[in-house]
Amino acid sequence: MSAIDSAAVLAKIKFNADGLVPAIAQQHDTGEVLMMAWMNAESVAETLATGRVCYFSRSRGGLWRKGETSGQQQRLKDFLIDCDGDTILLKVDQDGVACHTGRRTCFYTAARPEGLTEVAKVQVSPDELYKK
Amino acid sequence: MSAIDSAAVLAKIKFNADGLVPAIAQQHDTGEVLMMAWMNAESVAETLATGRVCYFSRSRGGLWRKGETSGQQQRLKDFLIDCDGDTILLKVDQDGVACHTGRRTCFYTAARPEGLTEVAKVQVSPDELYKK
Repeated sequence: MSAIDSAAVLAKIKFNADGLVPAIAQQHDTGEVLMMAWMNAESVAETLATGRVCYFSRSRGGLWRKGETSGQQQRLKDFLIDCDGDTILLKVDQDGVACHTGRRTCFYTAARPEGLTEVAKVQVSPDELYKK
Repeated sequence: MSAIDSAAVLAKIKFNADGLVPAIAQQHDTGEVLMMAWMNAESVAETLATGRVCYFSRSRGGLWRKGETSGQQQRLKDFLIDCDGDTILLKVDQDGVACHTGRRTCFYTAARPEGLTEVAKVQVSPDELYKK
């Protein structure tokens, strides 16, 4: 998609005390929810400018350009803000798999009456993803 | 769905320092992402036991049985935990509208090249929802 000026968007977002906002990534055509991560103002602005999704890594304390290491990038299709401005929904086109375990989605453990159940299989080995 | 024993589920979830975990609600059949809210251990256990979604309201500081005031309940269809246990995905059947503004989804503001754009219309007036 075309670059989007981030000023009005950033003004609409209510970042938390750490300067972060949760962002849900959803595959734009199938509707599959892939993952949830966090963004800061800089990662929002970069995502809107480049059309490639960039998060903020709380563990590394820096920008996390999704797919930078694994090649599994997310191309932005639409950027939605919720009613109170404190959650983002990213509609994306996900290359390959979203999860670091090599599964398409991070949400692969279901709580069922019969117990915790794995509902998505590994498609790519993590060793292959991260070229260990 | 049948009641689910919550002990193994609660052991799998990594609640944050406030004892909360973010929960995404998605309409189970259409894939529409409806809202994101927070759950504590008690609201997770109640949701699994009753099959009706219960959140934790950070503003009120107590359990928030979705639809208790508005009638717009969420029936649980599936309960998914992400790879690192710090986000929940609830597949639900939403009665009426999820958003307090009377829209089906809370994610109705899109950041587009032409500016912030409303992409979902009000279906029920908030006055009607909350019988003001």
